[in-house]
Amino acid sequence: MRTDYTPSDPDYAKRVRASFDAQPMMTTLGVNITGLGPGWIDLEFDHNDDFTQQDGFKHAGAIATALDSACGYAAFSLMPKDAAVLTVEYKINLLRPAKAERYRASATVLKPGRTLTVCSGTATPADSEETIAVMTATLMTLVDVGIQH
Amino acid sequence: MRTDYTPSDPDYAKRVRASFDAQPMMTTLGVNITGLGPGWIDLEFDHNDDFTQQDGFKHAGAIATALDSACGYAAFSLMPKDAAVLTVEYKINLLRPAKAERYRASATVLKPGRTLTVCSGTATPADSEETIAVMTATLMTLVDVGIQH
Amino acid sequence: MRTDYTPSDPDYAKRVRASFDAQPMMTTLGVNITGLGPGWIDLEFDHNDDFTQQDGFKHAGAIATALDSACGYAAFSLMPKDAAVLTVEYKINLLRPAKAERYRASATVLKPGRTLTVCSGTATPADSEETIAVMTATLMTLVDVGIQH
Amino acid sequence: MRTDYTPSDPDYAKRVRASFDAQPMMTTLGVNITGLGPGWIDLEFDHNDDFTQQDGFKHAGAIATALDSACGYAAFSLMPKDAAVLTVEYKINLLRPAKAERYRASATVLKPGRTLTVCSGTATPADSEETIAVMTATLMTLVDVGIQH
Repeated sequence: MRTDYTPSDPDYAKRVRASFDAQPMMTTLGVNITGLGPGWIDLEFDHNDDFTQQDGFKHAGAIATALDSACGYAAFSLMPKDAAVLTVEYKINLLRPAKAERYRASATVLKPGRTLTVCSGTATPADSEETIAVMTATLMTLVDVGIQH
Repeated sequence: MRTDYTPSDPDYAKRVRASFDAQPMMTTLGVNITGLGPGWIDLEFDHNDDFTQQDGFKHAGAIATALDSACGYAAFSLMPKDAAVLTVEYKINLLRPAKAERYRASATVLKPGRTLTVCSGTATPADSEETIAVMTATLMTLVDVGIQH
Repeated sequence: MRTDYTPSDPDYAKRVRASFDAQPMMTTLGVNITGLGPGWIDLEFDHNDDFTQQDGFKHAGAIATALDSACGYAAFSLMPKDAAVLTVEYKINLLRPAKAERYRASATVLKPGRTLTVCSGTATPADSEETIAVMTATLMTLVDVGIQH
Repeated sequence: MRTDYTPSDPDYAKRVRASFDAQPMMTTLGVNITGLGPGWIDLEFDHNDDFTQQDGFKHAGAIATALDSACGYAAFSLMPKDAAVLTVEYKINLLRPAKAERYRASATVLKPGRTLTVCSGTATPADSEETIAVMTATLMTLVDVGIQH
């Protein structure tokens, strides 16, 4: 167990997986859920030459996209069952070049809130603890509304 | 003319375009250069269902990836001809949902430096000034070295 | 006129000034309002040796504090008259050392919202346009509640 | 022991304390070093009405200033003995209102580097683990130069 948050929706895992599976971006990038609990999630994805920079390393944008999704779903896991989640902002620091065969993007809720949730995310090679990137993200809970800020 | 910076490399435009064309990630996302000068760049890309969220809107990660590249190439345009550019960190605020048919990601150098360059980026629909996202990014100039931090 | 926002509270200027005057931190740092409109504000403050770093330059924290307040009050100017404003997060890039006799911290609303407002801030010497620091801040509108997140 | 970094300067602690003591801003805010090791530092400071907001809570700027210094000195502890440290940028998320009698600002190096060091900082009440704010900061090592970017 990574956190001791109690989810308001006991079926949070089913809800997170259904939303994740409905994201074409995750399918396109080949990202999968490999671990999930209340307030945390682990995603993994293989290296793919389609998402590289001019030097053959993974584009920071692909790492950031996976971390953004990880932060969003970590937050979403603690939201009420009828809520939608929206990324308000995030900040990423790229600590090392991304040159692994497979990556892990993990996120944890730092502070859940009725309106705003703050998450911390970390990207590493899937087989190492060597940090490639760290993210802090602010997510918003949307209830009974269309997607809007 | 967007900025009045004088590029140290008079062939900066050719250098920027060559590096951009060598990025599979930009090809995959369908991003093209539509404007370029010393210290600034405009990129554009069409909506593509492969890069959407669960609600059919553009995934923030695709917007962020284009903005990150825009900031990187705005900085790169002012770097010496033998330099490589590295994203140190960026922060993005998502101001409105991304639901256009075509997008523009523009970036401008706020402060060039020998080691670090700071850029500001803005994403809008291609046919509107309504801001979807703003980014501030820190880029590093690498000379005579492999890619490292 | 810096922005064309229409304030929901016609007495916004009085409300902003009253809140600003009630902030001991602004008095302590010697910060004053030198310009104010709907969605923007200019603050100025003199150099003071009490708020310097080990090298005699202004501490980034003093610059950041003034910019944070500028962003907060730019947002507050567009909020309903019974609202309180809360800083959710901010990011600052320090572009040049702060070694002026007097500073200006200016902020503008990039996107007002019912719940969240995003502002952009810039610090310069009071007599120059040379940017010392840039900030992006997210502010929250609190209505009919105590101060909470 | 908080980290297992080996400082390049065995006298790092003396060097950190000397630089810290030479910062008028730290004296003004009443901030003291309460713990120090290679790559980490703990600072503490009492509540002081001079640094409050309009509601009597600690101004975010005071919390941010202490966290910024903590990140700077955590990085500085691993730098060569003739180096100076410069804050490139930081991002802070404010998670809970600051209404304690005494605060702790702790920072740890996430990734040391020859040119850039990335640190993570956390502010809590001195007698609690309840997080008030989190910071990610990028610091630059300056060697054999005046203070510049």
